[in-house]
Amino acid sequence: MSFSLGQKFRLTVYGQSHAKAIGVVIDGLPAGLDFPYTAIQTALERRRPGKKVWSTSRNEADLFEVKAGIVDGKTCGAPLCLEIRNQDMQSKDYAQHEYLPRPSHADYPAFVKYEGHHDIRGGGHFSGRMTAPIVMAGSIARYLLETSGIQIYSHIHSIAGIKDRLVDFAQPDFKALSELVNKEFPVIDDLQGQAMKEAILVAKEDKDSVGGQVEVIVDGLPVGIGQPLYDSCEAKLAHAMFGIPATRGVEFGTGFAGANLRGSQHNDPYYLDSNLTVKTLTNHHGGIIGGLTTGMPLIMRVAIKPTSSIGQPQASVNLDQQVNQELTIEGRHDPCIVPRVVPVIEAMTAICLLDLMMMDGQWPTISTKN
Amino acid sequence: MSFSLGQKFRLTVYGQSHAKAIGVVIDGLPAGLDFPYTAIQTALERRRPGKKVWSTSRNEADLFEVKAGIVDGKTCGAPLCLEIRNQDMQSKDYAQHEYLPRPSHADYPAFVKYEGHHDIRGGGHFSGRMTAPIVMAGSIARYLLETSGIQIYSHIHSIAGIKDRLVDFAQPDFKALSELVNKEFPVIDDLQGQAMKEAILVAKEDKDSVGGQVEVIVDGLPVGIGQPLYDSCEAKLAHAMFGIPATRGVEFGTGFAGANLRGSQHNDPYYLDSNLTVKTLTNHHGGIIGGLTTGMPLIMRVAIKPTSSIGQPQASVNLDQQVNQELTIEGRHDPCIVPRVVPVIEAMTAICLLDLMMMDGQWPTISTKN
Amino acid sequence: MSFSLGQKFRLTVYGQSHAKAIGVVIDGLPAGLDFPYTAIQTALERRRPGKKVWSTSRNEADLFEVKAGIVDGKTCGAPLCLEIRNQDMQSKDYAQHEYLPRPSHADYPAFVKYEGHHDIRGGGHFSGRMTAPIVMAGSIARYLLETSGIQIYSHIHSIAGIKDRLVDFAQPDFKALSELVNKEFPVIDDLQGQAMKEAILVAKEDKDSVGGQVEVIVDGLPVGIGQPLYDSCEAKLAHAMFGIPATRGVEFGTGFAGANLRGSQHNDPYYLDSNLTVKTLTNHHGGIIGGLTTGMPLIMRVAIKPTSSIGQPQASVNLDQQVNQELTIEGRHDPCIVPRVVPVIEAMTAICLLDLMMMDGQWPTISTKN
Amino acid sequence: MSFSLGQKFRLTVYGQSHAKAIGVVIDGLPAGLDFPYTAIQTALERRRPGKKVWSTSRNEADLFEVKAGIVDGKTCGAPLCLEIRNQDMQSKDYAQHEYLPRPSHADYPAFVKYEGHHDIRGGGHFSGRMTAPIVMAGSIARYLLETSGIQIYSHIHSIAGIKDRLVDFAQPDFKALSELVNKEFPVIDDLQGQAMKEAILVAKEDKDSVGGQVEVIVDGLPVGIGQPLYDSCEAKLAHAMFGIPATRGVEFGTGFAGANLRGSQHNDPYYLDSNLTVKTLTNHHGGIIGGLTTGMPLIMRVAIKPTSSIGQPQASVNLDQQVNQELTIEGRHDPCIVPRVVPVIEAMTAICLLDLMMMDGQWPTISTKN
Repeated sequence: MSFSLGQKFRLTVYGQSHAKAIGVVIDGLPAGLDFPYTAIQTALERRRPGKKVWSTSRNEADLFEVKAGIVDGKTCGAPLCLEIRNQDMQSKDYAQHEYLPRPSHADYPAFVKYEGHHDIRGGGHFSGRMTAPIVMAGSIARYLLETSGIQIYSHIHSIAGIKDRLVDFAQPDFKALSELVNKEFPVIDDLQGQAMKEAILVAKEDKDSVGGQVEVIVDGLPVGIGQPLYDSCEAKLAHAMFGIPATRGVEFGTGFAGANLRGSQHNDPYYLDSNLTVKTLTNHHGGIIGGLTTGMPLIMRVAIKPTSSIGQPQASVNLDQQVNQELTIEGRHDPCIVPRVVPVIEAMTAICLLDLMMMDGQWPTISTKN
Repeated sequence: MSFSLGQKFRLTVYGQSHAKAIGVVIDGLPAGLDFPYTAIQTALERRRPGKKVWSTSRNEADLFEVKAGIVDGKTCGAPLCLEIRNQDMQSKDYAQHEYLPRPSHADYPAFVKYEGHHDIRGGGHFSGRMTAPIVMAGSIARYLLETSGIQIYSHIHSIAGIKDRLVDFAQPDFKALSELVNKEFPVIDDLQGQAMKEAILVAKEDKDSVGGQVEVIVDGLPVGIGQPLYDSCEAKLAHAMFGIPATRGVEFGTGFAGANLRGSQHNDPYYLDSNLTVKTLTNHHGGIIGGLTTGMPLIMRVAIKPTSSIGQPQASVNLDQQVNQELTIEGRHDPCIVPRVVPVIEAMTAICLLDLMMMDGQWPTISTKN
Repeated sequence: MSFSLGQKFRLTVYGQSHAKAIGVVIDGLPAGLDFPYTAIQTALERRRPGKKVWSTSRNEADLFEVKAGIVDGKTCGAPLCLEIRNQDMQSKDYAQHEYLPRPSHADYPAFVKYEGHHDIRGGGHFSGRMTAPIVMAGSIARYLLETSGIQIYSHIHSIAGIKDRLVDFAQPDFKALSELVNKEFPVIDDLQGQAMKEAILVAKEDKDSVGGQVEVIVDGLPVGIGQPLYDSCEAKLAHAMFGIPATRGVEFGTGFAGANLRGSQHNDPYYLDSNLTVKTLTNHHGGIIGGLTTGMPLIMRVAIKPTSSIGQPQASVNLDQQVNQELTIEGRHDPCIVPRVVPVIEAMTAICLLDLMMMDGQWPTISTKN
Repeated sequence: MSFSLGQKFRLTVYGQSHAKAIGVVIDGLPAGLDFPYTAIQTALERRRPGKKVWSTSRNEADLFEVKAGIVDGKTCGAPLCLEIRNQDMQSKDYAQHEYLPRPSHADYPAFVKYEGHHDIRGGGHFSGRMTAPIVMAGSIARYLLETSGIQIYSHIHSIAGIKDRLVDFAQPDFKALSELVNKEFPVIDDLQGQAMKEAILVAKEDKDSVGGQVEVIVDGLPVGIGQPLYDSCEAKLAHAMFGIPATRGVEFGTGFAGANLRGSQHNDPYYLDSNLTVKTLTNHHGGIIGGLTTGMPLIMRVAIKPTSSIGQPQASVNLDQQVNQELTIEGRHDPCIVPRVVPVIEAMTAICLLDLMMMDGQWPTISTKN
């Protein structure tokens, strides 16, 4: 169903931006796993708007509550239910949009689909706020992957066309990548990051917004994870990434640029490294061939559109009166959501990879013993 | 499961490149639908290698047989089973690759995953030949969509960096698009197409290969098809597209390029057209917002990597003897698979859209009456 | 997954007997449906232990909270989340059972499966308390079915071998059946009900328990609901009924007794009634043939085992010390759960039938208009 | 979907009684498993009508062909496709039933559901012939379970009310049970079997039919297989059993009879056996509590209705002319299908148990090595 994701590590999200709560039910974990409270809260902090130049002034503590599934700090075999109560809601801001759809928001198709009954407050269930439950579930998945030696890194690849330092796909600088999770603005090259932040600030002053790309690098995956065709690593990851509002494109390895190469350039030659492990000299394939992991770093990029809510007047249509009508969006919004999407993309990546590994039965390292 | 796709229009494929047969079981269609024999055979013809410069010399008639599900030329409520017997197989060509994986092919991760038991002949179940059942299923879906006024068009957006004429996303030239399906080399600008074909020929002479992009335009979709989050139009389409071997990227509307725009540029202003229909002046969103169709043309691009099989010597590793070893691929292969992927991408698009419409219960126009 | 049920009307339950809360997430409803608050609360009351002779003295108000999915009293297209906070928990009663499994309870296999990490308090997620979320979801399904003229009735068919009045499968006394929902002890023949209650009382005095059967009659189903084979009405209903703790058998129509009949006795002759509707003279088939509804009343019986918790000493094994050890169960428990299971079985029936109808796309009467 | 079953061991069947072929696609098996050709053919022989008194004279060789998924006698990671060509079809026998539904057959609800477009020849996709693919898939599952020490036995529990010797649920006579698979008429007590066969013969002479019950006993299951609630062993097994045409009831352990017992009688006391294994003195629970296996023998009974096709005149309705009309069924049919259902029930049991074990990840003994 539309609000559920995954086969073995299966999550179902609920809530709307201004409902009483948002939450997630997670089914499929074995009993006896340590529950990573701190990791979850830390990840939620990364997604929170905070007081940064690039984010909305809506500011909630995003403290979560464990409703079920944990006994004495460990999973008990029942599904987990984790919930965040909504606070700091300013629902009145949205009244005008019931019949006046905001460009690039789901307002108009939702109005048609739900015949006007959808929750317009804060974007309802189309809100980016629906990614908070994903961050919670993803923190658990990530914690389990990390105990198996699998690390997920990501950086802002670009914002407003300003690019971070390129990552060497075959031999990434893991030391630099490992610092990203602690950065408020996760770029490798902080000077470029400074330029990006300035671009955001300029856009904000213009009552405008900017978009960008996020690049994910995963290290430590075993060879052969994933399935052919419709449970392939790419298919599952892309499916999940397009479940994040604002995603407009997903590519692996060299992606679209690779389509311009010749086979002799794009193919990655195999060699045996000093540990007699099979590797490729280059990694244009981005760690996945035929849907299966190759043991090389997994490389994925996600295109994030500029924030749809901008402060400038825009052309729209009054759906009730059936006339063209200008609208100006009030309320709070991020001039750039790319930094806040980073932990969401990491969470989704973790969710998919854990699910793929569990589907493969290749999960010997989840200890369920005390 | 990995070989099944769809929720209401549900297909399961079987076969390997050199198995006795490849086929597809299709469940979910109502009884009483006309079975489009000719449309299926025509679509298979479009995917066939033929005698074209860009394609392999493996050449099979690809005649299909209806095993079950049709009575007197109509569906009977039981699943359809459509099958193609494999012919013209030269299995001996592949013996050397059992332990000598071809770069950019699934050979190596498959060897690890299946512990050497996978079918290496012709790529086994990783073969592009597995897309023939998709073309059959897609022809049925397309036929049903067309009876509802939904048209799927696609063209070769680019090959080897040479681009076809750009499509106006908001107001495509449907007359030009409607001619594509009859073209052997589906481009809008035949001069550019000639340049692409020359690039393919040069690559072939160099024992090399080239890749490209395919762009899909869908006209006539109602507003509100699709679901939020994980059954969104983008999520379902991207999932399916990455189930096609050789896909490396998927984007909608302006996609990756849109991530460089500002919100004021990227947002598409609404207006009422002369029929009082809500439209957008531009269509950067590619016909989908928040996972739902907006009534504007659906725009999707798919990046196809250069054919992995090339005639040049390549570096590999002998997995049995654990030594580096050069390999040269014999056998037949396409210097560019992009033209042959076009009908596959169209078929996948039709499958996803029919499924999404059936999930929405918005399928009043399938007549099941005589 | 194990805690999810249904395809189009899809529910996911969470919670344990002594977790902070139990609840249900319901996906798949269209927007604009009236939310039946009162019907849900009334159904929960029917399941509550109350102060009756046959039930536990654990007594919770079972007031539910709507977490998400409802705006202005109507569904909004987002999943519903309904929750009940747990109260009146006496967790200490259960400490002894960690290593001393109660006969006929899930304690022992759960101990092995979860390696001792499952929640032993109140039976954890194996508790009958997990049926309260089902009752909430079922109330919604029932409300929708009733607006379409479909009525679900059920009575206690027997307790401790004492039988209620037999129902005529072909022509049930719907007047008598319609009174059942308002009865505290839902039998058609109250004298027989009195005898059953006395049997329960005697068992209680003996620190023992009794079981019984529940019979469901559904009126008003259209012809042809359900699918062949694995989405048949019987398959889906039986699957759901065995998801209710304590169910040991499910049969339709004449069921097991019918297996002793001859074909000439068991077959139900067709005839046209005065409205030119096709009916059967008898209804041994219980309203379902080949997985599809026939338009005759749907008849199902469910066998409920005697409550596993009894006050008498029982033989068990100390799993920690690996010795045989007698146990006596303290705490509160029902001498007979059959009366409390009745609304659960009705809820499950409603859930399955609504799902089957939605799968068939035969749901024209759900109005989503104001 | 309706023609698919299972989550990890996933099968999809196709075909109709008089289609060109019937078959099954099986997804989920690891590569490198030996393919049990002989076991499959032997199992098909057990289901075949043969020249026995109780069965139809339609007689097909039921030779199957492997379409895909096997290389050098082993699974290759691709789905298996196994097919049987239909032969010996006498389609003309069925013409009269297009508008004259046979009592207790799916003809009438199918006519309504499919608006007259379903395949009426031989019962179309409602035919018992659809169980042949199940027998093929079940043979593979059974072969794998047996290599893990899990044995599935079943006997005709009763026919026409005549009962076979009772099985001791706690300590079955496995020696006697192990002889059943080789018996043409699988009963423990051959004298009782003789009485059953005579009852069948008398019914046949009366142009009538008889039904019965099949009892399954599974030995060797580990403790803790299955999940709570909706993936419980009972829920999955019952779901599958009701996917067999003619099933009218399913019960586990003491089943319906157990509902008349008191808790003190029904509860099974635990004890440690001489190997320090936890066992129960009695086995009223039938090897499953709370959805999980307990390590005791799994006990299930399935009620099979008398064959619907009988030679006597029956009352029906002409659906075209809308008048009551008598019908007499011509063509071939079994006076009792119970003996032929036995291998189908065993196959379904094997399919479900293998799937449940794979879902639990408890399948360490499938060797995928040479």
